[in-house]
Amino acid sequence: MSQARLMDGTSLARRILEETGKRAAGLTERTGTAPCLATVLVGEDPASVTYVRMKQNRCRKAGITSRHVALPAATTTEELVGTLEALSADPGVHGILLQHPMGEHIDERAAFEAIAPGKDVDGVTFASFATMSFGLPGFVSCTPGGVMRLLDEYGVDPAGKRAVVVGRSAILGKPAGMLLLARDATVTYCHSRTRDLSAAVREADIVVAAVGRPRLIRGQDVKPGAVVIDAGYNPGNIGDVDFDSAAERASLITPVPGGVGPMTIATLLEQTVDAAARQLGAAGV
Amino acid sequence: MSQARLMDGTSLARRILEETGKRAAGLTERTGTAPCLATVLVGEDPASVTYVRMKQNRCRKAGITSRHVALPAATTTEELVGTLEALSADPGVHGILLQHPMGEHIDERAAFEAIAPGKDVDGVTFASFATMSFGLPGFVSCTPGGVMRLLDEYGVDPAGKRAVVVGRSAILGKPAGMLLLARDATVTYCHSRTRDLSAAVREADIVVAAVGRPRLIRGQDVKPGAVVIDAGYNPGNIGDVDFDSAAERASLITPVPGGVGPMTIATLLEQTVDAAARQLGAAGV
Repeated sequence: MSQARLMDGTSLARRILEETGKRAAGLTERTGTAPCLATVLVGEDPASVTYVRMKQNRCRKAGITSRHVALPAATTTEELVGTLEALSADPGVHGILLQHPMGEHIDERAAFEAIAPGKDVDGVTFASFATMSFGLPGFVSCTPGGVMRLLDEYGVDPAGKRAVVVGRSAILGKPAGMLLLARDATVTYCHSRTRDLSAAVREADIVVAAVGRPRLIRGQDVKPGAVVIDAGYNPGNIGDVDFDSAAERASLITPVPGGVGPMTIATLLEQTVDAAARQLGAAGV
Repeated sequence: MSQARLMDGTSLARRILEETGKRAAGLTERTGTAPCLATVLVGEDPASVTYVRMKQNRCRKAGITSRHVALPAATTTEELVGTLEALSADPGVHGILLQHPMGEHIDERAAFEAIAPGKDVDGVTFASFATMSFGLPGFVSCTPGGVMRLLDEYGVDPAGKRAVVVGRSAILGKPAGMLLLARDATVTYCHSRTRDLSAAVREADIVVAAVGRPRLIRGQDVKPGAVVIDAGYNPGNIGDVDFDSAAERASLITPVPGGVGPMTIATLLEQTVDAAARQLGAAGV
């Protein structure tokens, strides 16, 4: 019998997008310029094409212009860096999204670092990682930022709590842990080399699963009353958490889909409007 | 009765400095240029003056030129940034050390970010923090880097072990945890808001105390056989660990002084020679 309350990312994301749309309209009215997100895609990977199209559609609905740059699969790192530097210098572009992963031949880190930190609305640069880590103003990685918004929405204050992040990727696990640490949680990072994952997860008041292994976290690993955030993405809309068994012990849990997923785009668009407001000198909007 | 084996930072640092001196001499011979560390000090805080002088003395012994820039206490952030940008652009300077903490009126982060990442031999920039965090090539913060060298020297492989870092400062606790995570430890960050510090520390195979509270970690908090690293600095040469009681349970422990302390300067000088070798096109040295 399921007891946990659901953390409804779909409806929270909808509200954020509505608010973001209002801010975008206000900004456009006041400055004569609509916020603009540049989307950059290398190659034609079908999943990436779909993701970019979703983001463009959401932009349109929110009154954010999107400018798409489609580059051939054979684009070199140098060419990609040149494109990103040009967008970084272009006053008509306020935020930059570089869709990833990219082809093996591209130095992903060199590409990310060509994005000006002030336009890094996807939170992928060294500078954004560091500002997240040090609790300084800056853009957050969108999925971890969305996780924090969900916690806030459901009244979960991380301060003093034990948080366990399963996964340590540069755009998901690592920044999620740093954002929780900046909010005064006692944070543990677990990963593929962790010896007794179940024991570590059982210590957690807040679990963030962000590893991309279907149903890795089971109900028996969940401390009764814990908050369980499933940020995993696996084929077939399966999360990193075994929902049914975890929901029997958690107090709050995100569903998959409809939990963390929708928060990612909402955070991206919100940060695009933040960036535009700052660049257009209308920071109060 | 003390049972733990001592981790002798003094002798390891001496060996690193000897090796660094040989590399500096080789580099000078091959390129006609000695490695050069710029030291920048704002004001005349006696402790800071002493630290800078120690670093200059060590440089001299190792065959590293040091160029000292003494700025008045009233220096503005803008002026300091200008100085650091000039040093960053100066081909005669290979590494930059900005002594900190600085006066309250200075934006420390703006100053750090004016240091070119390729000369950030003290590991204080956003870029260095991110490369440490992502396990990428780059300079490490000197004290956490020294901690990792001590672990290596004493055959402690962090992979799969539970490491607990007590403290989360930008130059000590946070990077120490990230370096341990990059070496596959399961890492927990504890701090002033951690609810049951003793319980968290008792889980640790490796404890890094880096918080600046005298004798915070006592023997009863140490898991039998754990490795205890005391990176705390408190007046009177007192560490963050209660040495006598901790040594009864630990397998390895750093003394204070003579443990982590000497490793910091050794790492700084080693990284200065690394930076010079790269900039002088003699990376093999």
